[in-house]
Amino acid sequence: MKIANLIIVGVGLIGGSIGLAAKKRGLAGRVLGIGRTAATLEKARQLGAIDECFAEPASAMRCAEVAVFCTPVNRIAGQVLEYAAFCPRGALLTDAGSTKGQIVADVEGKLPDHVDFIGSHPLAGSEKRGPDHADPDLFQNRVTVLTPTPRTRPAALERTRAFWEALGSRVLIKSPGDHDRALAITSHLPHLAAAALAGTLDRGLFDLAATGYRDTTRIAAGDPELWTAIFAQNRTAVLEALAVFRNQLDLFRDCLTNTDWKKMDTLLAEAKKVRDALGS
Amino acid sequence: MKIANLIIVGVGLIGGSIGLAAKKRGLAGRVLGIGRTAATLEKARQLGAIDECFAEPASAMRCAEVAVFCTPVNRIAGQVLEYAAFCPRGALLTDAGSTKGQIVADVEGKLPDHVDFIGSHPLAGSEKRGPDHADPDLFQNRVTVLTPTPRTRPAALERTRAFWEALGSRVLIKSPGDHDRALAITSHLPHLAAAALAGTLDRGLFDLAATGYRDTTRIAAGDPELWTAIFAQNRTAVLEALAVFRNQLDLFRDCLTNTDWKKMDTLLAEAKKVRDALGS
Repeated sequence: MKIANLIIVGVGLIGGSIGLAAKKRGLAGRVLGIGRTAATLEKARQLGAIDECFAEPASAMRCAEVAVFCTPVNRIAGQVLEYAAFCPRGALLTDAGSTKGQIVADVEGKLPDHVDFIGSHPLAGSEKRGPDHADPDLFQNRVTVLTPTPRTRPAALERTRAFWEALGSRVLIKSPGDHDRALAITSHLPHLAAAALAGTLDRGLFDLAATGYRDTTRIAAGDPELWTAIFAQNRTAVLEALAVFRNQLDLFRDCLTNTDWKKMDTLLAEAKKVRDALGS
Repeated sequence: MKIANLIIVGVGLIGGSIGLAAKKRGLAGRVLGIGRTAATLEKARQLGAIDECFAEPASAMRCAEVAVFCTPVNRIAGQVLEYAAFCPRGALLTDAGSTKGQIVADVEGKLPDHVDFIGSHPLAGSEKRGPDHADPDLFQNRVTVLTPTPRTRPAALERTRAFWEALGSRVLIKSPGDHDRALAITSHLPHLAAAALAGTLDRGLFDLAATGYRDTTRIAAGDPELWTAIFAQNRTAVLEALAVFRNQLDLFRDCLTNTDWKKMDTLLAEAKKVRDALGS
């Protein structure tokens, strides 16, 4: 795959990493960045993640071959629909949002027929933000989930797959709903748990918080606004995951209440088995 | 501080690291390891963590100047009382257990008068086990909590402090109860949360578990038996910490249920503030 003009909308950690990866791997001739904050765009340009900066979409989108929307999940669908109007025929639009159901539903059926949109979610990133933390190898060997629907054109799906594979990623295909239910468990619930744990810590105890606590709460440092938008978009599945988690916690609480150490040992052994199987 | 004969009871990750650190820093002339498993003792000797292996306590303890008990928390008090009988006058006994209240209570009042015991807890280690994972710098700049009581001899407390400081540790003094209540929040609760999260993960979702999930659940790989003993010893404080955590989770659940995204943003911002202040 070779893209003459790659558009990145939102040049933060993810958008910046896509730009760096695309240039490092010779995937894109020219990378055009679109963003609201001039300083962030300029920073991304200085870091080599993009070649040109655009505050407005029209002129950049007119030459779009592939455009990736790396903005907060609550802004992606609106931008895709707005920016699609400027695109040449055959342009492929995709995104990097952590939720898929609502974005895909909002876009589908309203998108002009001369372009394609496929939802994507690269499972990469960190609690950090901004192009300063961009990394050309961020997607290397990481999973990217694509969420086509029955209305997706097969050729567009294959181009999207080729795009993420060219960035080093391993591609999985899921329905938007399956993606969201899975990520509610593997990502959104852990974020809530980490935030709730951080919420129980009095600053007087900082000296007594060692590696275990730091690991367990690390993602609580994520951006609140971005995460609120994710929870709003995946509300039902997160509520379901939270209910399952609370049931698990109740099992542990019952062991403590009833001094049932045999059951406690069994529950911890089951958790260890899962975590060991997952690997480091 | 200079110790002619340092005894380490239990030469796993912590005991092995104490041996390596003591030798690297010239703290101990000779390190004697006592343990139940011949292969583990021999491994620790090969790694240079101990100089001599003992399956039984009597002969090693007879020359003890300082002895550190690095066995599971449910075995420490019994071993301290049993092994103390062999010690010469003035021997200092301490431990590395993750709980302190019950151990200190069980030892105090029953210890022969010719030796001292001070509870210690170095906040170091990992989900791994065994002398293979021992590290001479494990205690470097890490906190070790000492838990004296009104009956503790000041000179014994100072020797214990000097011991851990000689291993590179920063020493904090807490009562056994304060230690246990604090660690319930900073260590034992996160372990339960990590285990409960691991318990919600179906293996079909492994591909979709990225860095955030891995960080949040890492400690769930800890040894079930060791952790069951910790929970049994700190039952009341862990139940209290769990209740606080559940209240925090309820706040998040209510935001989801009521689509109160402003409150959600506030809760996440508070958690981020705590986590940012804690540092990496």
